[in-house]
Amino acid sequence: MRKVAVIGVGCAKYGARNDVTVSEIAFEAFKPAVEDAGISPKDIEFVAVGSAGAGAWYEENLPAVVIAEYCGLTGAGLARCEAACATGSAAFAMAYWAVASGQVDVAVALGVEKMRQVDTPTMVEFIGRSGYYLWEFHNFGLTFPGYYAIHATAHMAKYGTTEEDLALVAVKNHKYASMNPVAHLRSRITVEEALRSPVIAWPLKLYDCCPISDGAAAAILASEEKVKELKIETPVWVAGLGYSSGTANLSKRKDYVGLESTVRAAQQAYKMAGVTPNQIELALVHDCFTIAEIMAYEDLGFCQKGEGAKLVREGQTEIGGKIPVNIDGGLKAKGHPIGATGVGMIYELVKQLRGEAKEPSRQVPFKNYIALAHNVGGTGHYCYVTILRR
Amino acid sequence: MRKVAVIGVGCAKYGARNDVTVSEIAFEAFKPAVEDAGISPKDIEFVAVGSAGAGAWYEENLPAVVIAEYCGLTGAGLARCEAACATGSAAFAMAYWAVASGQVDVAVALGVEKMRQVDTPTMVEFIGRSGYYLWEFHNFGLTFPGYYAIHATAHMAKYGTTEEDLALVAVKNHKYASMNPVAHLRSRITVEEALRSPVIAWPLKLYDCCPISDGAAAAILASEEKVKELKIETPVWVAGLGYSSGTANLSKRKDYVGLESTVRAAQQAYKMAGVTPNQIELALVHDCFTIAEIMAYEDLGFCQKGEGAKLVREGQTEIGGKIPVNIDGGLKAKGHPIGATGVGMIYELVKQLRGEAKEPSRQVPFKNYIALAHNVGGTGHYCYVTILRR
Repeated sequence: MRKVAVIGVGCAKYGARNDVTVSEIAFEAFKPAVEDAGISPKDIEFVAVGSAGAGAWYEENLPAVVIAEYCGLTGAGLARCEAACATGSAAFAMAYWAVASGQVDVAVALGVEKMRQVDTPTMVEFIGRSGYYLWEFHNFGLTFPGYYAIHATAHMAKYGTTEEDLALVAVKNHKYASMNPVAHLRSRITVEEALRSPVIAWPLKLYDCCPISDGAAAAILASEEKVKELKIETPVWVAGLGYSSGTANLSKRKDYVGLESTVRAAQQAYKMAGVTPNQIELALVHDCFTIAEIMAYEDLGFCQKGEGAKLVREGQTEIGGKIPVNIDGGLKAKGHPIGATGVGMIYELVKQLRGEAKEPSRQVPFKNYIALAHNVGGTGHYCYVTILRR
Repeated sequence: MRKVAVIGVGCAKYGARNDVTVSEIAFEAFKPAVEDAGISPKDIEFVAVGSAGAGAWYEENLPAVVIAEYCGLTGAGLARCEAACATGSAAFAMAYWAVASGQVDVAVALGVEKMRQVDTPTMVEFIGRSGYYLWEFHNFGLTFPGYYAIHATAHMAKYGTTEEDLALVAVKNHKYASMNPVAHLRSRITVEEALRSPVIAWPLKLYDCCPISDGAAAAILASEEKVKELKIETPVWVAGLGYSSGTANLSKRKDYVGLESTVRAAQQAYKMAGVTPNQIELALVHDCFTIAEIMAYEDLGFCQKGEGAKLVREGQTEIGGKIPVNIDGGLKAKGHPIGATGVGMIYELVKQLRGEAKEPSRQVPFKNYIALAHNVGGTGHYCYVTILRR
């Protein structure tokens, strides 16, 4: 397998971005990425666009071609990838394999989503359909806060996780988002504010839920040969990639205290990278709801099953703790523009591994320079885990 | 680059398939493909689903996970790919690169579309949006017959191509579809019938247009090592893959007598395969409208620019001619279930290269066993060219 590095990254400001079209927000991520890599758009041979809501959430049915043209990429190969909320990671995987296979030397994963052009109830329905439509949504009316509330109540019942523990995740992630210029929700909150916020689907309250965000992120990948040719100073290598899927029919799940697809994807990624969970020095995990972050600690092997809440109580997932998690604000507060999210994680990992998360400082200290991104689609319907190494 | 072979193919009956859900029609393609390969679904490590209309044309927003589960593929990595009408080829490319990179040994490209659940005007609008929405569709109201009519009038004006030439393409493709059990339109037509059919967008008439079809097709890809391990008797190797894109803004095109993205994608595929156009012994080309087949002859290098009509007049694109084209009926008469189309081409090429297109005989004679699939998205917004070799 050819070695592949991320050589350039960019991230648009996440948030309510009614000021830009989908092409414009994509360009906000793409332009700094090509500048970062020191290349021109013409050097890019394949473009994998990650976007889930094309033609439904925003007007362009075929965002790949329209965005590519806006970014000066016409002529390159194009595809759009979708894997529910792991859409950005699916695009990253396609771009990675295009380079790793030897087909191309330079590819870009360009994740983008415009989610705020439709009204909120419509968006909640759209996302709610992102399970097994004919069963969960159509017959039972479940939407995503409800799905994750099932996980939260199961975890609370089995392991004694509390509403306060969930609130602690939100407080941590809001704190780091307040220090991240591209984050959507930049206000700090307290445990009391989180607990007092309106109930959405008990035990999940408003502050347990990620916002609906517009956003875009770009990651440029290159072969080892190209890294040398371009004299890239700090390439960040793709060390491991794992992926898996779970049943779309929630009634078939063995339990609701974790996600099997995360466990399998993580094992695959660790094996490929030749590392163990305790070697990971930074993780960005899929915290669409606070309970999802606690389950991810456990499913990714950062602690034993059932001990996730303890990690956050002890502050072990803060910078300086055993394993800093979501120190960019996470989906919870940086935001979750679906197609962008997975690529936005790569953006943050690359910046961190290069030591560039400095203004204001959210820089994680590294010894081995190994970091992980974890991106889930649905409630474990899809999962991608990517390990990067400087 | 690792050698990759197609080791199993399947194709559902294309047509008005109100009798099946999207998962069921996908299974109709998938089941024969795994049986053909002699493997079990559990051997498949990555699933690239090609589908453009998820959640809009049919009810499932996330067809990849729902179809994968129905096919016994839960646990495998999943993504959906979209590249307009080249969606199936984008899924094939992702599955190919997943194997070629060394990441997996066995992957499946599973193309599927259900297009007939929505009413025809809505579908025509959906497809019409598959250009540059804000320009061509929203401002000028163009839909696809109009787009390709621009190409047809340009080609007629510059090269003397006639309405009869267009009709000859339709007659040929209907003839072969009548011999293809999985084709949508299985009736033969005459030149007179084609010319007398209602005008849709002059010079294109009803019989110049492909139908709106439901359908599915599957292609299982495996590494050379796996081909040996499984003792596959007649692996069909992926010899070349090319892809390109063109401007989404038609006013920026240099001319309308061909598709630049086809020319570029073909050159790339020929170079990778180390072959020239005159070595191709069978081609399946993107004949969404009859003029598109004539342009493809030229853009793929089977004749000089402007001489496409001559090829069909002389019968050179029939079986026994210089270069048989669309002897499965093409999009024109086999049908064009968008996500399935590109994978359905691979199905036919593999059957042909193995000498299995025998009942009734549409078998093309081979000397060098080299065949090509050409799949366009939009009007050259996307293009993929795949060359297979036995």
